[in-house]
Amino acid sequence: MTDRAGASLYEHLYRCIRTDIEAGIITEGEKLPSKRSLAKHLGVSLITVEGAYSQLIAEGYLRAEQRRGYFANLPVLLPIVDFTRGNHLRSRDAVEEAERKTREIVTPLAITAASSLIDLRTGNASPELFPFKLWTRTIRSVLAHESERTLLADVPTAGVFRLREALAAYLHGLRGMNVEPEQIIIGAGAQYLYGLLVQLLGRQHTYAIETPGYPRLAKIYRANDVDVVFIPLDEQGASVNALRASAAGVVHLMPSHQFPTGLITPISRRYELLTWANERNNRYIVEDDYDCEFRFAGMPIPTLQGIDSNERVIYVNTFTKSLGAAFRVGYLVLPWHLVKRFEEQLGFYSNTVSALDQLVLAHFIESGDYERHVNRLRTMQRLLRDELIAALRISAISKRIWIEHEDAGLHFILHIDSQYSAKDLQAAFLREGLDVCPLSCYELAAKPASVSPQTRIPSVATLQDRRFTLCYGGLRREQIGSVVSAMERAVLR
Amino acid sequence: MTDRAGASLYEHLYRCIRTDIEAGIITEGEKLPSKRSLAKHLGVSLITVEGAYSQLIAEGYLRAEQRRGYFANLPVLLPIVDFTRGNHLRSRDAVEEAERKTREIVTPLAITAASSLIDLRTGNASPELFPFKLWTRTIRSVLAHESERTLLADVPTAGVFRLREALAAYLHGLRGMNVEPEQIIIGAGAQYLYGLLVQLLGRQHTYAIETPGYPRLAKIYRANDVDVVFIPLDEQGASVNALRASAAGVVHLMPSHQFPTGLITPISRRYELLTWANERNNRYIVEDDYDCEFRFAGMPIPTLQGIDSNERVIYVNTFTKSLGAAFRVGYLVLPWHLVKRFEEQLGFYSNTVSALDQLVLAHFIESGDYERHVNRLRTMQRLLRDELIAALRISAISKRIWIEHEDAGLHFILHIDSQYSAKDLQAAFLREGLDVCPLSCYELAAKPASVSPQTRIPSVATLQDRRFTLCYGGLRREQIGSVVSAMERAVLR
Repeated sequence: MTDRAGASLYEHLYRCIRTDIEAGIITEGEKLPSKRSLAKHLGVSLITVEGAYSQLIAEGYLRAEQRRGYFANLPVLLPIVDFTRGNHLRSRDAVEEAERKTREIVTPLAITAASSLIDLRTGNASPELFPFKLWTRTIRSVLAHESERTLLADVPTAGVFRLREALAAYLHGLRGMNVEPEQIIIGAGAQYLYGLLVQLLGRQHTYAIETPGYPRLAKIYRANDVDVVFIPLDEQGASVNALRASAAGVVHLMPSHQFPTGLITPISRRYELLTWANERNNRYIVEDDYDCEFRFAGMPIPTLQGIDSNERVIYVNTFTKSLGAAFRVGYLVLPWHLVKRFEEQLGFYSNTVSALDQLVLAHFIESGDYERHVNRLRTMQRLLRDELIAALRISAISKRIWIEHEDAGLHFILHIDSQYSAKDLQAAFLREGLDVCPLSCYELAAKPASVSPQTRIPSVATLQDRRFTLCYGGLRREQIGSVVSAMERAVLR
Repeated sequence: MTDRAGASLYEHLYRCIRTDIEAGIITEGEKLPSKRSLAKHLGVSLITVEGAYSQLIAEGYLRAEQRRGYFANLPVLLPIVDFTRGNHLRSRDAVEEAERKTREIVTPLAITAASSLIDLRTGNASPELFPFKLWTRTIRSVLAHESERTLLADVPTAGVFRLREALAAYLHGLRGMNVEPEQIIIGAGAQYLYGLLVQLLGRQHTYAIETPGYPRLAKIYRANDVDVVFIPLDEQGASVNALRASAAGVVHLMPSHQFPTGLITPISRRYELLTWANERNNRYIVEDDYDCEFRFAGMPIPTLQGIDSNERVIYVNTFTKSLGAAFRVGYLVLPWHLVKRFEEQLGFYSNTVSALDQLVLAHFIESGDYERHVNRLRTMQRLLRDELIAALRISAISKRIWIEHEDAGLHFILHIDSQYSAKDLQAAFLREGLDVCPLSCYELAAKPASVSPQTRIPSVATLQDRRFTLCYGGLRREQIGSVVSAMERAVLR
C-alpha cells in the first residue's frame, strides 16, 4: 500500500503543481518551497517531492537556481486567459464601465443597499459571473450538431457516458484523480445523490457529519431516516478519536476546505481518516469536494479518493459553485465494488438529468470552455477576496479583526475582538444590511466538545473573540465599500 | 360532501366532454350515449348528466335531435390539427414518404428486423414521435427572450412558479382538476418524486401497490426502505377488501388505466377507495395518472384527486409518455395540508430540475404547442392501435385471439387461446423477434389471490387462455406486418 500510495502521490504532486502553474495560481518566477519544507508540510517523503520536482524541471515548468531554490516557469504554450470574451465577465473595460455606472447612480444604489441585504451567508455566486453567452452558444451548438437520436436517447441510470468521460478527464487534470468513467454516477444535484447514497450504503449505518458543519446536510440525512451523529473538528479537521468513539459507519467530510471553518485537512490526518475507514468492514468516507476549484494559494493536497487504496472513499461534487443554479448536476465517484452494487441494486432507476443538460455540460468541459471559465472565475474571486481583505485591513476596525483560512474556497473566517456577543454582532450586521453568520450558527450538536479545548480550532483565544464565516462568493466588487463601512458601524457603535 | 362532489362531477363531466370534442376524441356528428345509460355507466345521478349535457347544448358543443339522441358539434373556432408542422410527425405526405422508403430499402430493413427485437414490452414512444423541431425552437426562443436573471434565478424547492401555473391550467383543461399552482411540486421524474413522497408521508407507513403491477414501483419503494404489500385487482381495479385486510397506510394506484391490465376503475370503486382512505387518519392514495393523455374512446371518469374532498389523494404525473426521455420532469399535486408539511419538512431541498428545462416546458404548455403535440400523438397512436388490431383480426391467428382494454393508454391485453404455456409463447415470440411479456410477468406477489377467483379479471376462461400485455406505443407503423407474422409463426408453430 505504501508503494502504491507513494507512487500516486508523486504523480499527483507533479500534476497539481503543473496545473497550478498553468492556471496562474503559481505565478511566473514565483519561488517554490524547498523540497524538505514541502515534504514536511505535506507529510510525505522527501523522495516523493524530489520525483515531482525533477519531472517538472525536465518538462520546463520549474527551473532550479543554484543556492536560491526552485522557481516557476510559465510555459509559452499557455492559453492566455481571455478577459474580453463574454461581456458578463469583468474585463478591465467592463470593470471601468461598472465603476462609472456606480458613480453615476450612486444615490439609487445607496438606497438599494439599505433596503436589500448583502449576502455574506450563502455566498451563492452572482448570476453575472455565469458564462451566459458561452452557455447559450453551447446549447445552440449541441442542438445543431448532435443527432436527434443522441439527444432523445434513453439516458443510462448512471448518466450519459460522454459526460462521465469528460468528468474523468477533468478530475484527472484538476485533482490528479485516476478515475474511470464507469465509476461516475450523474444525478440531479448533490442532495439527490446523498439520498441515493443512503439507498446504496443502507440505512443500518449511522451517518456522521462534521460540526460546525453544513446544517442542510443534517436535514438531508435525517429526511432519509438515518441516524446522524456529529463529529467535532480539531485543528486538522474531523477528530478521528471522536469518530472512533461514535457509532458512525459512514462519515461525510469536506477535507479540502471545510464549511464553515475553512479548515484544510493535512495529509497525515487524511491517512488517519482512511485508517479509521479500514478498521472495520463496510465503513465509508463521503468526500465532499464542493469548492475545490477555488484554491488560491498553498500547496495542493491529494483527495482522499486519490490516496484510498481500499475502496473506502466516495467522492462527491457539483457545479453549483462554478456554474450556479443553471445546471442541476452533481456526480459521485464510486469505488469499483460499489459500482457493481449500484448496478445490481439501483440499476432500475432512470437517470434524473435530461440528456440535453448532460450533453451541454460534456461539450462545455471537452471544449476547455469550462476550465477557462473556472480559471477566470477563480481569478475574479481571488481579486474580490484580496480587495475585501485589503479594505478590511485599512478600515477603522483593522485592529479589532483577524482573518483565517482565506486561501481556498469562497469563504474565510473573520475573527472580531468585541465586547458584544456573536449574536449581538450578527443582529447589528443585519441592521446595517449585512447577512452574515457567526461560526456558532453552524454548531450542529448541542454538546460537540468530546475533544479537549486545547485541540479545538485555534483562535486568538480572548473572551472577546467572535468568529464569523464570511462567504464572499456572491459579493459584487462595488459592494465592498458598503460591506466594510457597515461592519465598522456595527463593531464600533 | 355529496353536494360538493356532485357539483364538481357535473362540471368535470361537462369539461371532459367538451375537451374530447375539441380534441377530436369525440368526432363531429358522433352520437353520445343517452343520459340514462351514461349516468349508469359512470355511477352518477341522472341530474349530473343532464346538467352537463344542457350546458354543452347551450354552448353549441352538442345538439339534441328529437327521438334520435345527442350528437357532437365540432365548434368552428377549433384550431385545425396541423399535420404539416414538424417533419418528424407523420403528415399524410410524410407517411407516404416513409412507406416509399420502406419499399425501397426492404432488404436491409428485413435484416434489421431479424437482428433486433421489436419492443412490445416497455412501449417507450419512438423518438421520431418527439416534436424535435418545436422543442429546439422553444429552447432557442426561451434563451432569446427570457432575461438572464430569470434563467439563472434560484429555483424554489417546489419548482418554477410559471411551470406550476401552466400545469394547473393544463390539468384543468385535460382532467377537469381544480388545482392551484401552489399545490404542484416539480421534480426530476416520478421515481425521484416517489422517494420524496416517502420522506413526506413517512417510513412508518406500509405502502401498497397493485398486482399485477409495475415491477419497478416495488423496487423503488423497497429501495426507500418501506414495507411493501401487494393488492390484487378484481374486475373494477384494486380490491378494497384486500386493502382493508392489509396493513397499508398508503396505496399507489393507476385507476385511469392500470398497468399492465389496462383496467379502468369505475366511479363507484373510486368512491370506495376514497372511503377506505377516510376510515383512518393518515391514509393516502397516490394516484398515478401516467398515460391519461391517451384515452381513445369511452366516457371520461374524473380523477380521484378531483372527487377527493378530504385531502387524501396525491396526484402524480410525468411527461414520459408524451415527450419521451427528453424531459426528466414529473410533478405531484399535493392536498393543502401536505403542501404545508412539504414546506416545513422538506423546504430545505433544492429543486432537481434546471430553470431552463422548467421554463422551456412552461412555454411549451402555455403556447398550446404541447396540447397540439399530444393531440397529434394521440391520433397517431390511435391509428397505430387500429391498424395493429385490424391486422391481428385478419391474421391467421384471428380465431385464437381476443383483445381487451384497448380504449385507453398505450397497451392492451391480448388473449391467446393456445396449448402452449404463456412462458413458452413468450420464448417463441422472442425467437421470432418480439419482446412481449405475459400478464403473469407482472404478478408482484407470490400469492396475490386473497380475493375469490370469480371476482378477478374477466377472461375467456379456458385453460388455454394466455394473456399478454401488448405495449404498442413504441411501434412504427411499418413494423405491424412483421409483428403479426411473427405472432402467427409463434402461435401456429
